[in-house]
Amino acid sequence: MGEFDLIARYFTRPVRRNPLGVGDDCALLQPAPGMQLAVSTDLLVEGRHFLSTVDPRALGHKALAVNLSDLAACGAQPLAFTLSLALPQVDEAWLAGFAEGLFALADAHDCELVGGDTTRGPLAINITVFGEVPAGQALLRSGARAGDDVWVSGTLGDARLALEAFRGTLSLPQAVFAAARERLERPVPRVALGLALRGIASAAIDVSDGLLGDLGHVLRRSGVGATLEAGRAGELLAALADGLDLDAERCEDLVFAGGDDYELAFTASPRHRSAVEAAAAQAGTRVTRIGSITPETGLRLVDAQGQPVSRRFAGFDHFA
Amino acid sequence: MGEFDLIARYFTRPVRRNPLGVGDDCALLQPAPGMQLAVSTDLLVEGRHFLSTVDPRALGHKALAVNLSDLAACGAQPLAFTLSLALPQVDEAWLAGFAEGLFALADAHDCELVGGDTTRGPLAINITVFGEVPAGQALLRSGARAGDDVWVSGTLGDARLALEAFRGTLSLPQAVFAAARERLERPVPRVALGLALRGIASAAIDVSDGLLGDLGHVLRRSGVGATLEAGRAGELLAALADGLDLDAERCEDLVFAGGDDYELAFTASPRHRSAVEAAAAQAGTRVTRIGSITPETGLRLVDAQGQPVSRRFAGFDHFA
Repeated sequence: MGEFDLIARYFTRPVRRNPLGVGDDCALLQPAPGMQLAVSTDLLVEGRHFLSTVDPRALGHKALAVNLSDLAACGAQPLAFTLSLALPQVDEAWLAGFAEGLFALADAHDCELVGGDTTRGPLAINITVFGEVPAGQALLRSGARAGDDVWVSGTLGDARLALEAFRGTLSLPQAVFAAARERLERPVPRVALGLALRGIASAAIDVSDGLLGDLGHVLRRSGVGATLEAGRAGELLAALADGLDLDAERCEDLVFAGGDDYELAFTASPRHRSAVEAAAAQAGTRVTRIGSITPETGLRLVDAQGQPVSRRFAGFDHFA
Repeated sequence: MGEFDLIARYFTRPVRRNPLGVGDDCALLQPAPGMQLAVSTDLLVEGRHFLSTVDPRALGHKALAVNLSDLAACGAQPLAFTLSLALPQVDEAWLAGFAEGLFALADAHDCELVGGDTTRGPLAINITVFGEVPAGQALLRSGARAGDDVWVSGTLGDARLALEAFRGTLSLPQAVFAAARERLERPVPRVALGLALRGIASAAIDVSDGLLGDLGHVLRRSGVGATLEAGRAGELLAALADGLDLDAERCEDLVFAGGDDYELAFTASPRHRSAVEAAAAQAGTRVTRIGSITPETGLRLVDAQGQPVSRRFAGFDHFA
């Protein structure tokens, strides 16, 4: 099968937003008047971002999900995406599965494939995603203010728990592993929550490299610091609710520095607490208040009595 | 050096179009009123699109040039791009060279880096480029009409000639090789010509996979065919003017099916001949009329007497 047959067979669908369909030199997009186009791009490489054994349906889902998560963190409504695919060979069953997972998520968010590129090479997937946000209303990393609450959506650490089980550094009961693996392989981008938080959250980021590392970007951009309650970790790891027995320190490692969560970490004024809860209810997404923004820079973990907890966490860095 | 240090050191520059700078979850773009955003994406993989020995400056140039070439083929004005980079290791000299070549071309086209992603992995570069075109004025593949002239810009086949020399299938005099290698490694995207052809060309495409294959996309999209003069090949290969001695058949292979040219192939009504020449002069780019569009579908090569030339050319296909 040639490159163009491959595109025609697996990646050509009825046209909606791009007036040209897939296959001209460029796609054409036109944001509505007064709207800004939010753009994000993520490159996933085999062995680094996913295991070679991953179900191609899950991989198609995840490749788009991690990009939609960036739109969510900006409060942008998904519109369209481009897909670049380097494939070691043309495996039709793999492509069919990948396309199925990809388009299921795309359709759920009314997000249209408008262009792309395919080539032979080590398996890699680059998606660039486009969303729309009213000019001036995007959630930014730079808006956190001293006194704001720090919130996270959903649960944290379960994806990393599954990765550690794959790596063999711990073993998990089957049901716990299945649930954690689902979080690793099929993250749910918090698009509805991001949209509902427009005008409420003061800053937001998506948690991809680990909560502390990602929240650190918000703090640096905003020129502030934060105090987080270490004891909340137990509430945030879903595996504990599923019955996993885990020591507190390992639990904190997973929750605060696990990575691959694709939840939102965001800040909001305390006067917006009920608005945050309402936005979360509207989006059908749990949120947990885990600390507060301080005028002093830096990130501090404290125990239930407010005493500093001394711990080191390695933020996940692709070149560390 | 970590991922964030790498971004800060090599890829962070003063902000112009993206109000956030590089480093928030999304970049924000806002096309001017009445403008459409033209979007294209290209993935370059080591060993497939470039040799591991290529000068990183040339690679930085080419990675953006092939994307700007897609904008040129749509008649779009470059605005911005995102860069995804998979690197086997952090090599500072390599990164400095890559960034130098990339930004020299970006600055020449006032095209701003607005976001990206870096990861460890087999060397691969994905750029998604954004341009602006007045709504409804983009040059498309679908507009060719029977009777139109077929034109190409610049010269064709020299990039493939250099590739064949690298592969050892032929040997070239040093000066010919140096010039051909420049065409392979530092293609010049025909942005000014694409802009000048708005309202004049009926259809356009950039020649990346070889003239016949790429022109074939225009013909299929437009529901027409074309007759090309095989004898024009000699005029189009710059290496012949540089003194290379080459048989006619090999010359035709290079010109009609070489690939990696990043010239524009376009069609225009014969009544626009002087307008095409004026656009080319304005853009400082040579153009050559090589044939005409026919109502019968398919692509025919003819000799100087109009007699069919029977030749087979393999279009370059990444999965063939």
